[in-house]
This record gives sequence, C-alpha cells and structure tokens, in this order.
Amino acid sequence: MNRLLRRLLLWCARNDWMREHLPNLPFMKRAVHRFMPGDTIDDALGAAVTLQVLDIATIYTKLGEALTELPQAQEVADHYLELLSRIKSSEIDGEISVKPTQLGLDLDEDACFAHLRTLAAAAEAQGSYLWIDMEDSAYVDRTLDLFQRLRATHPRTGVCLQAYLRRTAKDVERLLPINPAIRLVKGAYDEPKAIAFQDRGEVDANYLGIAVTLLRESRTRPLRIGLGTHDVELVQQIATHAGAAGIPKEAFEVQMLYGIRAKEQRALVRAGFRVQVLIAYGPAWYRWYMRRLAERPANVLFALRQLLP
Amino acid sequence: MNRLLRRLLLWCARNDWMREHLPNLPFMKRAVHRFMPGDTIDDALGAAVTLQVLDIATIYTKLGEALTELPQAQEVADHYLELLSRIKSSEIDGEISVKPTQLGLDLDEDACFAHLRTLAAAAEAQGSYLWIDMEDSAYVDRTLDLFQRLRATHPRTGVCLQAYLRRTAKDVERLLPINPAIRLVKGAYDEPKAIAFQDRGEVDANYLGIAVTLLRESRTRPLRIGLGTHDVELVQQIATHAGAAGIPKEAFEVQMLYGIRAKEQRALVRAGFRVQVLIAYGPAWYRWYMRRLAERPANVLFALRQLLP
Repeated sequence: MNRLLRRLLLWCARNDWMREHLPNLPFMKRAVHRFMPGDTIDDALGAAVTLQVLDIATIYTKLGEALTELPQAQEVADHYLELLSRIKSSEIDGEISVKPTQLGLDLDEDACFAHLRTLAAAAEAQGSYLWIDMEDSAYVDRTLDLFQRLRATHPRTGVCLQAYLRRTAKDVERLLPINPAIRLVKGAYDEPKAIAFQDRGEVDANYLGIAVTLLRESRTRPLRIGLGTHDVELVQQIATHAGAAGIPKEAFEVQMLYGIRAKEQRALVRAGFRVQVLIAYGPAWYRWYMRRLAERPANVLFALRQLLP
Repeated sequence: MNRLLRRLLLWCARNDWMREHLPNLPFMKRAVHRFMPGDTIDDALGAAVTLQVLDIATIYTKLGEALTELPQAQEVADHYLELLSRIKSSEIDGEISVKPTQLGLDLDEDACFAHLRTLAAAAEAQGSYLWIDMEDSAYVDRTLDLFQRLRATHPRTGVCLQAYLRRTAKDVERLLPINPAIRLVKGAYDEPKAIAFQDRGEVDANYLGIAVTLLRESRTRPLRIGLGTHDVELVQQIATHAGAAGIPKEAFEVQMLYGIRAKEQRALVRAGFRVQVLIAYGPAWYRWYMRRLAERPANVLFALRQLLP
C-alpha cells in the first residue's frame, strides 16, 4: 500500500498535466507552507531566525525545474551568489546546497563545473559551505566526478549520497581518500530493483552500514558526516554504534528538512546532537514537494489533515 | 501477524504442558526431521558427509534443557568430549557449540568455566574450535565474562552475539581488544523493547552495522567472523560493503542451520562464500525447534506443508 502510494506520488511529480494543474489548487499551497517558508530569499532567511535561537544551523536550496537553455544556469548561479551575500549580511550560520542540473549539467558539463567553482569559492570566502545535491541514478557518476574535481581545490564542499543505491558503499570507498564531506540520505527517486534496494529494511541497513563506515573512518581522517534523514530511530541506532566505539556525537550532523519532525529536531539538539535544517524555497516547489510526500507516505495523511478547517 | 505468531511459538516453547505433549504428536517428529538429522552423535555426524562433499563445514550442538543438578553438566561435558573424539576419528571438518547453562552456569559458574576450559582444550588439541552460544538477555554479561576468561588461555574459542540486542554494538567494542571470534545472529528470544529492537528493519540495520564494524576491524586485527543468519539478502549486502572496502569474502563465514535454505547454502558456496552448517541434534529438540519456527514464521507454513501426504 505504501509502495503504491509512493509510486503514485512520484508519478504526480513527473506528469506534465498534474504539474501544471495541481500546484494551483489553493489547498496545495496551504499544505505545502508548513514545509516551505515561501518563494523568496527573504522568506527562507526569515525562517532561520527561530532556528538559530534553538542552536539549529541551516542549509538553503532554491527549488528548480530542469533547465532548457544554458543562460538559465547563469541565473541560478547568480541567485546563489546573492543568497550567499544575504546569508553573510544577515549573520546567519548558513550553507547552500545546489543541484548540478540546475547549473546546467545536462546542457554543458564544463559550464556546470565553472558555476560550481564560482559558488564554492564564494562560500569558502565567507566561511560557508557548498553542498552538491544528488539527483536520480543517471547523474551519480557525473555528480561524483564534479565533486572530486571541485574538492581538489575547494575543501569546503560536500556531496550527497543515497543509501538506497546498491553502488553507494562502493562510492563511499572511492571518495574516502579525499576525506570527503558526505550528506547521507535514504534516497527519494523511483529507481529499479537492479540498482536500488526497494525494501525499507534493506535501505535502513545499508544506511547504517555506510554510516558506521564513515564514523569509524572519521577517527583517522577528517570527514564531515551529515545524516540526512528524518528517521530518528535510525539516528539513535547510529549514535549507539558511534558511542560504543567512543566516537562522540559531534562527529556527525543530523540534517532534516524545514518543518518535518520539528519537535524531534529540537529534542535532538537538547540531547546533544548537532542539527542542521535544510530550507527549500522558491516557486518551483511542486515536484520537490511530491517527492517529499513519496518519501514518507505518512506525510500524505498529514497533508490531507491540513485541508480540514 | 508475524509478531503475533512469533510470540505464540515462543510461548509454546516455554509452556510446560505444551512441552510435554506437542513433541509426541507424530506429525511434529515428521516436520522436525528436515531440520534435525536425529537424536544421536551418529545421526549428526552422518549428516556431515553430504555437506563435506559440497565444501560445507559443520558445527555440532546437542540440544538440551535447563539443568536441575550439577552432575548433569558433567554428563553434557562428557558427551561433547565424546563428540569431539568422534569428529576426529571420522575426519570431519567439525567444530562444537555449547550453551553455558547446559554446562551448569545457573548452578555453579566456576564449575561451568571448568567444563568450558576442558572442552576448549580438547577442541584445540585436535584443531577444532569451541563456540559458546548465547542464550536470553539475562545471560549476556556472564557469558561474555566466561568467554573473555576462557579466551585468555584458549584462542580457538568464539562467542555468539545477538544483533537484536541494543547493547551488542557496545559488546563488540568491549571484545575487539582480544581479537575475538564472533558468531553474529539476529536473536531468537522474546526480549522486551527496552533491551531489544522489535522491528525487523532495525534488527537488520543493527546486524549490518555490526558486521561492517567487524569486517573493517578485520583488516588490522585477526578476527574470526561468522554471519549466523539465513537472510541471504543481508549476507549479500554485507558482502557488497566488504567488497567495496576491498575485504575478500574469505574474511567471514556464513553459518546456517542444517536443512534451512539448503539450496541457498550450496549457491553461496558456488559464489565463493565460506559456509558452515550448524547441526543440532538430540532428544530435547522441542524448545529449540519452536524458537527456530518463531525466528521465521514463514517456516510454520513450511512445517504445516509437511503434514500433507
């Protein structure tokens, strides 16, 4: 049942007609508001204020659709440069996360890399950080290539890996020699069985296995480890493994999305965990939102409840 | 549903009336035969012949009930000494596994240790191996104490750890300094939520996390790692993690029970895995059999199918 709902939501995310019409329904905007502070940089940074007070740092990402021509990538890069400068002037402890396709990966890989380098340099200059997001499985090789090239000159950069992919344990080993920053997520695309674990238990097991690998390696090399998951029980399991091996909670960060399990975010901070919240904003929220619902079909019930007065 | 069936079977294992009457039903004996070659040492060793041809090594354990007086422990120890000498004279690649309570742990811990030492020495003398089995959670501390004491003088000994216990990641760290041999199982007793993961996904994740820890540690210290599970998918996941880190399949053994997933046992051998089969035998099979059914309620359907002509 959950799997069916998940496929339906992912289909809604991809389907053109749905994408054109669903976002305009008034209840959709109401339901999404809890997960997205708004369309503008101001909306996004405004949400950070409350979080800073709670000792929760932030990562910002502008939601975007696939590009059709290269100048759009320049606009996206310019937007992130403006965002970085606004983060700086607002004195917010904020980092940024970008999708390579938003910066033109599909159109011109070199141009995409040039944008990443510009953003990495700007982030570095103000003590911020650039995260490279991971998209569906067709992009993994190119994204890791970009990350490795970038990381050679810009150490304040990290990449996202997806635990549901069977290849990820191997990707981790490939990256370990460069002491990477890795944001580990479960994965939210609709990938076939041959390349991705379908069963939740298998994904969780893979997630924990990779986290254990990263944490143990962090004792002998400087890694940055972001646990990008809302599965608090899994985070606790990982913390138990870390604690058993004498690895402190400070060795990793828990990264959750704005508005999802907000109470648990605060509880984690109180329990001594480092927590970062990813704030996604912008008018192109529809696909992103559908994928978030698909990730945890329980969220659909939550979204439906928003419709009641 | 599965959880309910599991609790019911574990209750059948504990209940006195059921224990007295169920085993005498003719269909029970028929159903159990597939998992148990028989009551005697001859039955057990006989089963090894076919396995040896398939390159599958064996571990033997005599099923036993709780002891009521100490001389019974001596009988059990004598039985295992006879078993060891029969393993030797049959030129079988066989090891033994014992439960500390069978050797009197509940009655006299020192006597139990003395028996363990005798068996460890006898196993060592003929190039065999002594595994200490793990029972319910009340015995974990004492069993690990016994193992650590024993291991100090007898290196050809190993202990079983249960991945469903929350404490196990910590127990692994405690044992690592002595380069232990660990047989990792999921766990089959009915333990409360406070000390054991209840959700299959959580148990699997913990299992994988511990396996990754052991495998990575095996690169710098001589560990013996037995994956005591019938979950072939989990074994494959672990092998992927190992392979990614350049750890060969020879770094661990897959340990399954006689008659359970026999086809997969052979497939694993063909795929280059080292496989050991645990052969349990003896008249006191009832409790043990009920726990095996509880471990994988799908086995109940299998057992029921045995009743049909």
